[in-house]
Amino acid sequence: MELVTFYDVDDLQGATPIAQVQGSVGSTILALARQGGVQIEATCAGKGRCGQCKVRVRGQLAPVTPTEEKVLTKGDLENNIRLACQAKINGEVSVWVIKTPKTHQILSSGLERDVSVLPLVSKSFIHVLEPTLDDDRSDDERLQEAIGSKGQIPLDVLMTLPGLLRRANHQVTVIQHPDGILGIEPGDTTGDLYGVAFDIGTTTVVGSLVDLNTGEELAVHSRLNGQVVYGADVISRINYTVEEEQGLRTLQEAIVTTLNEIIADLVNTAGISRAQIYQVVAVGNTCMQHLLVGVPPRYLAESPYSACFRRTLSVRAQELGLSVYPGAIVLTLPNIAGYVGADTVGVMLATSIYSKNKPTLIVDIGTNGEIALACNGRMLACSTAAGPAFEGAQITKGMRAAPGAIEAVRLTKDEVEIKVIGNEQPIGICGSGLLDAVAELLRLGLVDQTGRLLEQEEVPQSFDNIRNRLVTSNEGNGFVLAWDQDNRPQVVLTQRDIRQLQLAKGAIFSGIAVLLKEMELRSEDLEEVLLAGAFGNYLDKKSAVTVGLLPMVAEHKITSVGNAARSGAKLALVSQEMLKMAQELASTTGHIELSGRWDFQETFMEAMMFPDYEQVQASFQSHRKIFP
Amino acid sequence: MELVTFYDVDDLQGATPIAQVQGSVGSTILALARQGGVQIEATCAGKGRCGQCKVRVRGQLAPVTPTEEKVLTKGDLENNIRLACQAKINGEVSVWVIKTPKTHQILSSGLERDVSVLPLVSKSFIHVLEPTLDDDRSDDERLQEAIGSKGQIPLDVLMTLPGLLRRANHQVTVIQHPDGILGIEPGDTTGDLYGVAFDIGTTTVVGSLVDLNTGEELAVHSRLNGQVVYGADVISRINYTVEEEQGLRTLQEAIVTTLNEIIADLVNTAGISRAQIYQVVAVGNTCMQHLLVGVPPRYLAESPYSACFRRTLSVRAQELGLSVYPGAIVLTLPNIAGYVGADTVGVMLATSIYSKNKPTLIVDIGTNGEIALACNGRMLACSTAAGPAFEGAQITKGMRAAPGAIEAVRLTKDEVEIKVIGNEQPIGICGSGLLDAVAELLRLGLVDQTGRLLEQEEVPQSFDNIRNRLVTSNEGNGFVLAWDQDNRPQVVLTQRDIRQLQLAKGAIFSGIAVLLKEMELRSEDLEEVLLAGAFGNYLDKKSAVTVGLLPMVAEHKITSVGNAARSGAKLALVSQEMLKMAQELASTTGHIELSGRWDFQETFMEAMMFPDYEQVQASFQSHRKIFP
Repeated sequence: MELVTFYDVDDLQGATPIAQVQGSVGSTILALARQGGVQIEATCAGKGRCGQCKVRVRGQLAPVTPTEEKVLTKGDLENNIRLACQAKINGEVSVWVIKTPKTHQILSSGLERDVSVLPLVSKSFIHVLEPTLDDDRSDDERLQEAIGSKGQIPLDVLMTLPGLLRRANHQVTVIQHPDGILGIEPGDTTGDLYGVAFDIGTTTVVGSLVDLNTGEELAVHSRLNGQVVYGADVISRINYTVEEEQGLRTLQEAIVTTLNEIIADLVNTAGISRAQIYQVVAVGNTCMQHLLVGVPPRYLAESPYSACFRRTLSVRAQELGLSVYPGAIVLTLPNIAGYVGADTVGVMLATSIYSKNKPTLIVDIGTNGEIALACNGRMLACSTAAGPAFEGAQITKGMRAAPGAIEAVRLTKDEVEIKVIGNEQPIGICGSGLLDAVAELLRLGLVDQTGRLLEQEEVPQSFDNIRNRLVTSNEGNGFVLAWDQDNRPQVVLTQRDIRQLQLAKGAIFSGIAVLLKEMELRSEDLEEVLLAGAFGNYLDKKSAVTVGLLPMVAEHKITSVGNAARSGAKLALVSQEMLKMAQELASTTGHIELSGRWDFQETFMEAMMFPDYEQVQASFQSHRKIFP
Repeated sequence: MELVTFYDVDDLQGATPIAQVQGSVGSTILALARQGGVQIEATCAGKGRCGQCKVRVRGQLAPVTPTEEKVLTKGDLENNIRLACQAKINGEVSVWVIKTPKTHQILSSGLERDVSVLPLVSKSFIHVLEPTLDDDRSDDERLQEAIGSKGQIPLDVLMTLPGLLRRANHQVTVIQHPDGILGIEPGDTTGDLYGVAFDIGTTTVVGSLVDLNTGEELAVHSRLNGQVVYGADVISRINYTVEEEQGLRTLQEAIVTTLNEIIADLVNTAGISRAQIYQVVAVGNTCMQHLLVGVPPRYLAESPYSACFRRTLSVRAQELGLSVYPGAIVLTLPNIAGYVGADTVGVMLATSIYSKNKPTLIVDIGTNGEIALACNGRMLACSTAAGPAFEGAQITKGMRAAPGAIEAVRLTKDEVEIKVIGNEQPIGICGSGLLDAVAELLRLGLVDQTGRLLEQEEVPQSFDNIRNRLVTSNEGNGFVLAWDQDNRPQVVLTQRDIRQLQLAKGAIFSGIAVLLKEMELRSEDLEEVLLAGAFGNYLDKKSAVTVGLLPMVAEHKITSVGNAARSGAKLALVSQEMLKMAQELASTTGHIELSGRWDFQETFMEAMMFPDYEQVQASFQSHRKIFP
């Protein structure tokens, strides 16, 4: 073994080594750099094409290769510049590193982050010494020496090692992760290193295919979670695992099938092979994480709502049945509590909430609302059972955000303007429309602060053109948002719908209120309010504040950050540092179990009331325009 | 968590803690002692029966239990003596340990060793804290806290954890090994902890069932290696894996089936359940080790005879298909080289060759002879291809040591005395008989030092009664050992048989000669010659020295140590220290590859000659008596 010492390019005297590595003769400088944790830019992944991995060398090296002669200039050669990916050592060598890797932007709607691309899984192309009569060591030991890693070579790799080494003339690519070796492949395959980040929603699953050499996202696909046929929400899925003997297994197989379908879409789009995917990172709520790895989620549904595990699990793809590289590592990001899952950790990671010095609130609205509050490094999170009102359920004419749904509403004294998805005839109302409708009725005073919808006779004459929309039917009082062709009420917002909204927004808002109280903050102290998830993209911010779903803050403080959970998963996929940060976030974020608090009922009762519109008006000048 | 501090019983002031452990209220002192690596005698394995685990305590403990009242005397109670297995902590506690565990004799024919019983696998009975609304940690974390171990709880344990914890009222037994948790069982099962040590011979497999709480051997069974139908020796097995597409798999399944059959015999004899076997240690030659774990042995058969692995592999029973506790650990002891396997390491361990200051030789004679030489901590080993002559193969009338085989021969001028296994009519000759026959012919001068069998006319008249046994037939010259009922030659030792013996003993002896030369020793420097394996038990020492199979040393220096390979496996099974020693032996023993030595041919040629009988006579007064 020969000593190779790395220095920074500016350290001309070689005074302060960055790293020292023992390497066998014939190893490339790039492979040894990776061994020593020294980052050298190599965009072409060691093919000798990009010329990015130029290093200055001194010592015993094999002669300049034809590949290098193409890429290096005469000046380079005179200055002892070599390509790290080509230059092989012949003895003791000193290396001056010129370029370290670029960072790569991880994009997501509303979010841009730069991280250094250094995934958990890496590849090294190495030359293993061949056995001789004088060298009685085993294949295992000679490979171990070549990779210089402490992780032991696992049995499944040993099973193919003897034949593979000899077929490949002892030149192989080792797939490594910090705890060991995932596998080996003949020849140099370092250029093919891919990973997938999944956000496993209760309803929808989204996957991103990422090139782990560059951090670039190559494809995104989504599908319905295959578990939906066994129950629409988390509780019904848990019940299914309890009531059906093979229920847990069925649900696990369903989600694995969905993931495999998405993987098929992804590799198809990108034109790569499934077997080139070596790492998968999954986020999802705590129940989805349990179901993915086949751990019973049962006690999530029973007080005290205890998870079986919270930490990151590392499972091999073949154990789960994922159709990628069999030894690929599948990581579940950590969960914070039974109802604050890895998806929330993903959002916190993507929004770098941990670095916020001023009070920052994250609200992720779904059937459960997950709320996180951070200030000066302290982080709190809780979950509230908002119910599916924002998804249209339990609303008289409620529906999902699909064609025919009223998605926005504006009222004047004289008129009702509605925007319908797909510009079709309105047939129902979705979450954002519901928020708008109630907010507008509040603004005009047709709904009071307790949530009572006025009777027609209580409304001033000046509202003549819309007071006739206040109707009474079997379903109680209501406000007609749209008439049908025969002028009969088509979409009516009922008093009961308003109560449902009050319950839903009250649940979210009381969660926010409890976290603020716990940190001794007021709404007005908030510097930022970040809305995660699809609903956060669609809702009208002013309406959300008007109904009191969000605390009263100035409009510019509210930002939608889109599918930040998946962005977080991607960050953890490409960056070990981010993965570590996810662990830290999960373990340092305080969890408030609302049902365990003596003051929750009171907070909830207060939160169901609507705020004073005068105050809203002070923060918000107007709604966003719904028609251009 | 409460602090528990352990002191030696003599450390009255509690000046020097042996260990400190953080334990949860309700844990027994014995469980906490195990956590802290403190050994407390507990022969009944914590059932409160043996009274061996008495400790002196100070601090907050739960009241004396009815079990303790039965076992403890009034004096004990006055002196704060409690049973460690019963006394549960209520707060901070100091413990003075009275008795540390007995060592247990590991017996094997010719060998007795005392080792402390401290196997790799252990059990602890623990009480896991129940979840509450204030404690949002997961089952995983609460279990982890209770065991206080750094090893993470694996996914397969998590899969059953939630239900098991609740069914068992959070009182469970954890099966641990230094790197993690093998599994958990409801209630207290600490008394049931068994292991099996296997010696996997190319022909015969022997297994010992051992109580890992006491080190006691409960049963021994052996069976024919199921691989024999695919080839009698290592080379033919290797060829089978190369020539048959599923050959490796077939051979692996064959040996696993054999092991499972032996396990069935063992648990049947001992009256325990297969699922109570948590650890298996296997020794065997390097090829058998490869086949057991399903790693191709192919390159063992091709120069430079490179093994795929040499180190100890740790595999789960379920991966191999062994019918024991599914998460049980199966360890292969390390190999020294392609033809010096874990069986030799087992022999070296059992004979504690590493502690020999004076030159000690171990010879294990089989198809391959493995030879080890130790002196002052330096160890060398080699393997020689003796061939199957000692097993009766390639000998005209050769046979295994079975009924009808001549196992001993004594000659006088007038008479031939033979001993036949089973006292039957002789039908052939086995290895020990062959050695005796040739040795006796040498002594009488009927075979000369070059190995030539004299013709009848060359023999003096005084040998009249036996010179008529020198015959010539189609098979060349021969010596009749037994006549049939019609006075025709029944068992004849031919000139060719003598040549075969010369080749076989020459191979072994030249291995010995090379090792002695390498250590600059002469035969007469040897302090001990240990014969391992079955053949070593049967052969006549004087005959072995007479033919020059063993070097010329005084009779009392030669000892048969029986199946020392299995004894070594048992030692590694019950003692972590011995397991560690096995690793050390394998990595520090120098391996001499005979075929790689320029001087081997010459040494071999010399070793085929027979020694001068005068010199033998000086060392040995007589053969052992073959008839009482």
